[in-house]
Amino acid sequence: MKTSVAIIGAGPSGLLLGQLLQQAGIDNVILEKQSPDYVLGRIRAGVLEQGMVKLMREAGVADRLDREGLIHEGIELIYQGKRTRIDLKGISGESVVVYGQTEVTRDLMAARAKSGAPIFYQAQDVALHQVDGAQPYVTFSHAGQAMRLECDYIAGCDGFHGVSRSAIPAERLTHFERVYPFGWLGLLCDTPPVSEELIYAQHERGFVLCSQRSPTRSRYYLQVPLSDKVEEWSDERFWAELKRRLPQEVASRLVTGPSLEKSIAPLRSYVVEPMQYGRLFLVGDAAHIVPPTGAKGLNLAASDVNTLYRILLKVYREGRTDLLTRYSTIALRRIWKAERFSWFMTNLLHEFPEANPFDQRMQQTEYDYFTSSAAGLETLAENYVGLAYDEVC
Amino acid sequence: MKTSVAIIGAGPSGLLLGQLLQQAGIDNVILEKQSPDYVLGRIRAGVLEQGMVKLMREAGVADRLDREGLIHEGIELIYQGKRTRIDLKGISGESVVVYGQTEVTRDLMAARAKSGAPIFYQAQDVALHQVDGAQPYVTFSHAGQAMRLECDYIAGCDGFHGVSRSAIPAERLTHFERVYPFGWLGLLCDTPPVSEELIYAQHERGFVLCSQRSPTRSRYYLQVPLSDKVEEWSDERFWAELKRRLPQEVASRLVTGPSLEKSIAPLRSYVVEPMQYGRLFLVGDAAHIVPPTGAKGLNLAASDVNTLYRILLKVYREGRTDLLTRYSTIALRRIWKAERFSWFMTNLLHEFPEANPFDQRMQQTEYDYFTSSAAGLETLAENYVGLAYDEVC
Repeated sequence: MKTSVAIIGAGPSGLLLGQLLQQAGIDNVILEKQSPDYVLGRIRAGVLEQGMVKLMREAGVADRLDREGLIHEGIELIYQGKRTRIDLKGISGESVVVYGQTEVTRDLMAARAKSGAPIFYQAQDVALHQVDGAQPYVTFSHAGQAMRLECDYIAGCDGFHGVSRSAIPAERLTHFERVYPFGWLGLLCDTPPVSEELIYAQHERGFVLCSQRSPTRSRYYLQVPLSDKVEEWSDERFWAELKRRLPQEVASRLVTGPSLEKSIAPLRSYVVEPMQYGRLFLVGDAAHIVPPTGAKGLNLAASDVNTLYRILLKVYREGRTDLLTRYSTIALRRIWKAERFSWFMTNLLHEFPEANPFDQRMQQTEYDYFTSSAAGLETLAENYVGLAYDEVC
Repeated sequence: MKTSVAIIGAGPSGLLLGQLLQQAGIDNVILEKQSPDYVLGRIRAGVLEQGMVKLMREAGVADRLDREGLIHEGIELIYQGKRTRIDLKGISGESVVVYGQTEVTRDLMAARAKSGAPIFYQAQDVALHQVDGAQPYVTFSHAGQAMRLECDYIAGCDGFHGVSRSAIPAERLTHFERVYPFGWLGLLCDTPPVSEELIYAQHERGFVLCSQRSPTRSRYYLQVPLSDKVEEWSDERFWAELKRRLPQEVASRLVTGPSLEKSIAPLRSYVVEPMQYGRLFLVGDAAHIVPPTGAKGLNLAASDVNTLYRILLKVYREGRTDLLTRYSTIALRRIWKAERFSWFMTNLLHEFPEANPFDQRMQQTEYDYFTSSAAGLETLAENYVGLAYDEVC
């Protein structure tokens, strides 16, 4: 089997890249280890930057997003009960769109199916070969059959635990990492959100996020110690703790209900450099992780897709291959800034067990300064809605 | 002996408060442990915010400052050789004035002498009494004679190591502190500054500040380990190290010369709360210390003086004593924001022995973000020139 671009992973970044290439007439094949249902079952982010929304439109997969996505023009930041609305639209001119990653994936899957372009789910033993040569190929087994896919380029869209990154010799990679001393306990349920806009709240008992997927589906998070087990958190305990950490006037509006899903995720900042090796290009979580504070994970994957797609367009339409070597450099500029913002928001809003009283006052003063200065507010808003994509030229 | 306000300490804050009160017809007596020459011999900061300059003018002691002070409309920030000029004036509309703390003190001393208002140098065994009662008093010995000074209020302007703070019962005070794992080695010399504007430079060998006191007097600083002794740093070694940490095109312009003074100072962030107890009010370093990165120490003392002076004016002119209890709250709002900026600038520009590769990239990205975003630049500029004084009303 031969193709132009082999895409490893059918999460939103692999599917979006595939769709963009497909539309541009560039052959591609997607390989995914899991089943479609498994992929759709992963509960992930739900806040899309305008840059990603525009890319979805360009890929022709934004009809439902444009119809059902909720435009949010602001967010609320609460610090020990003190409430500040950040007027994203008023300050930056941009909004964000609330639309679950699961829905993004569903729409992209439908588009892939409609296009008829090849996608192999439950591809086993995926292995990348000769990625530093002129003719890389991927082997895998599918439905009991050994397969070989020859290609010009490989896009590694298979996440943090995928095989793509490990196809790069270890000595070529530099890893940057911070692991935070806590996790997020998330609960999904079919109740109306407590607030029209997202609420990020610092509280002495720990951080809270009141998020949502639709007018009838809410997603709430609690900062918890990493030692906590999800079994220790009954729905009742979750709701009681959530109410305790919210201002009374917010908590009193909270509508509770049975959880559809409940899980604990660790928080990590991670980047690998460079994001490419030979003809292999890492995209999204395969190369970098952000803590979820600030909702940058999916959006960063989209901005990597944007960068790689523009470069591949030049390759296949203009025969211009010089930009290929600059993929990592271009992508990393924006990634590091989003890593910074996610780290800043995480530091700003969580309880840190090791913080001394001076550190606590610095955290409080960061809140006071950035929410009271016009310039400070602008830095919050422009990062939350997403910094501009770097031009590829 | 009786007075309205007893001022402990004849550094710039004590002298400035004394001068403002004197002009307003409010009796005051200043007590200083050291001799005038000793006070003038302390080499300190040299960058004045507009707020302090205006306060000096209001006190009638800005003639020489306005004549000789150097108006700086920008500063330069360098990160690993990458240079960015921060256009303070263009961004914030304000400038700073370079004028040595020694000169400020000299001008204030002259004004005090001219006014004929009492000031006791070499006051020994200064002790504060009944500060929580209606009639506080201060005892001290002067020229071998035991003295007693009765007063309405006491202003503790005697610095971090002074007696004023310790006159407050320990259980009433909360201390906030961060000690940085390095110091600054400063060198003063009579050579023209290497650059018209101040240069703050991060370098893998450590931070550098190229400062100045006048067109013919320079002040340079190197980040050094706290274990270093000043005797280990010959002038030759200092200049060689300074050149190594500056970009070639800057280093090549450096004019070296024999040092007039050389010393190592530790870096610390410190705040005590509250800044008052009964009729005692702490001002400046007696209540808070900032690391010198960002030049906020003297300016914070001036903003405390401004706050206390406005409150005392209301007391003596309008008989309004209710504001007295709010001194600490009003002063601390601005202090914490300046503590934040000094901590931010210190974190941004120094080498931290404990930093891991992720921390180092966050530092670099903070530089990249704040010097490339218009909003980020505005936060740097508005803090460097000094946030507005809070109104006292």
